[in-house]
Amino acid sequence: MTEDAAGSVTAIVHAGGTHVLPLLGRVEDLLREVAASHGPVLAEHAGSTISAGGKRLRPLLVILASAGGDGDGLVRAAAAVELVHSATLVHDDVLDLAPLRRGRPTVFAVAGRAAATQTGDLLFARAFSLLARNDDPEQVRALSDAGSALARGELLQRADAWDATIPLARYLRRCELKTARLFEAACIMGALEGGAGVDGAEALREFGRRIGLAFQILDDVLDVEGPAERTGKHRGTDLLDGTVTLPFILARERDPELGAVDPRAIVTPAQAEEVCDRIAATGALVEARAIALEHVAAAKAVIPAALPERERAALLLVADNVVARYS
Amino acid sequence: MTEDAAGSVTAIVHAGGTHVLPLLGRVEDLLREVAASHGPVLAEHAGSTISAGGKRLRPLLVILASAGGDGDGLVRAAAAVELVHSATLVHDDVLDLAPLRRGRPTVFAVAGRAAATQTGDLLFARAFSLLARNDDPEQVRALSDAGSALARGELLQRADAWDATIPLARYLRRCELKTARLFEAACIMGALEGGAGVDGAEALREFGRRIGLAFQILDDVLDVEGPAERTGKHRGTDLLDGTVTLPFILARERDPELGAVDPRAIVTPAQAEEVCDRIAATGALVEARAIALEHVAAAKAVIPAALPERERAALLLVADNVVARYS
Repeated sequence: MTEDAAGSVTAIVHAGGTHVLPLLGRVEDLLREVAASHGPVLAEHAGSTISAGGKRLRPLLVILASAGGDGDGLVRAAAAVELVHSATLVHDDVLDLAPLRRGRPTVFAVAGRAAATQTGDLLFARAFSLLARNDDPEQVRALSDAGSALARGELLQRADAWDATIPLARYLRRCELKTARLFEAACIMGALEGGAGVDGAEALREFGRRIGLAFQILDDVLDVEGPAERTGKHRGTDLLDGTVTLPFILARERDPELGAVDPRAIVTPAQAEEVCDRIAATGALVEARAIALEHVAAAKAVIPAALPERERAALLLVADNVVARYS
Repeated sequence: MTEDAAGSVTAIVHAGGTHVLPLLGRVEDLLREVAASHGPVLAEHAGSTISAGGKRLRPLLVILASAGGDGDGLVRAAAAVELVHSATLVHDDVLDLAPLRRGRPTVFAVAGRAAATQTGDLLFARAFSLLARNDDPEQVRALSDAGSALARGELLQRADAWDATIPLARYLRRCELKTARLFEAACIMGALEGGAGVDGAEALREFGRRIGLAFQILDDVLDVEGPAERTGKHRGTDLLDGTVTLPFILARERDPELGAVDPRAIVTPAQAEEVCDRIAATGALVEARAIALEHVAAAKAVIPAALPERERAALLLVADNVVARYS
């Protein structure tokens, strides 16, 4: 987590009320307990993944969407969402052969392909074991549907790899599946643990969807924009993986030579940086960021008026925080 | 599925009553529907996995343990257990770089490492989406705990790899985790969909555990015993993977030279066959098979007397079928 992100999360936690920080602490305790409860092998692999942390944005959404809930069921729901997210990261790192995540060695790097694949499976299964204790099939449905969507989104992305002509609608569909659905699930699960009612829950789902889309689009902008010292990776890593995202899709309309680029011809970091510069020169990054901001504005507009003031304030900050990264 | 296995399954289905075959048909329909409901990418990958079939032993256990249930919830429970099983197979094939399963190309072989990993994730998530519709947290708990156990069992097995000195208790623990727990879950979920009551459900769980252990032990015996033309793989593939199983554990006590073998020195199929012959010469295969038969006898003894006669008869055949393979 970068310092400015940490600062933003602190502001959100503060706005959400004095109960939020203790709740996040209970979520951390539960995540550690899950990691420690399956023998030393898992503790070593999963413990490092879980404790590597991250912003805990999804558990925070569960907590805020519950509007004041503080039961053990809420803590389990928040931990379950984070476990599914962690499982996905562990599997992604295997497939990307990634040595580092958040500056720490990945499970793949430490334990190898097999142990990392199985650690991901285990974290996924543990999420549903935890959630089963909430005796609420709606929560199980929300999280398992999000888990399906994550896998489908990744499958689509690999199917689309190296295709410079993929339509905008296809890109947005991938964002829905691989990112927005889990944000939606976090909001729905929180609402179910709280008292938001059906209308409130649907509005919170839409909030989650919108900030999920904004989050993914901004991620894709930052991959092109850098700077590398802030994002922690070279500019253009998506292009090097053959992943065509919004900045390229917008830029190819403005720069026909860019539209003629074969992604397979981009093989060195220097070539990727050159394409990133061309994309930036078209103004596509400004436009993509504006699209992310539209989703943020729509998210803010849909926050239920019936929510307590502190949750409203905190969710507004969450929405702003999504696009405030490195800007 | 081999012909004699098919014959046995037919006998079990016949004993279980006229409602069993239509129920298995509904499970197949549901599995095909899941495979087809996520776009052409999944249909291609998962469809081939699911339609490759297998004995459907786990769905059959769900159906029989329900003692006459025939609702949609029962069909979903049976399909969910098979989806978790399939997800595990798809991931195992990625880790083993396996080109074929049941004589057909694996998802890994057809679609590659990434798509196969994600297809496994998707099948796993879909299992819980299906099961959530049963509105029964006990079923979700049973299946997610079994999913955790599967992953833990595989992790343990990889951690134990190449260690010729692993204790018997450790081997049995791995069998519990990687095989028996899903059989247990199948029985429990069936009992919950039927009317077995708490006592009946616990007895059926023990039945599942025992036949799961017998099933795994016999698999490990067949790996050493062959013949290759029946098992579909070379003798000693476990040894070549560094997996030390019951036949070796029993044989090393009887043949000190075998106990001194370094599994890492077994690198060619011919060397593996030679070690298999040495194991067989100690009588360890007879002893291992006897242990499997003890579990079968214990499974048969625990079948609840309160079950209808046709389910009792079918479960007795299931138990016998587990160790009747290739004998």
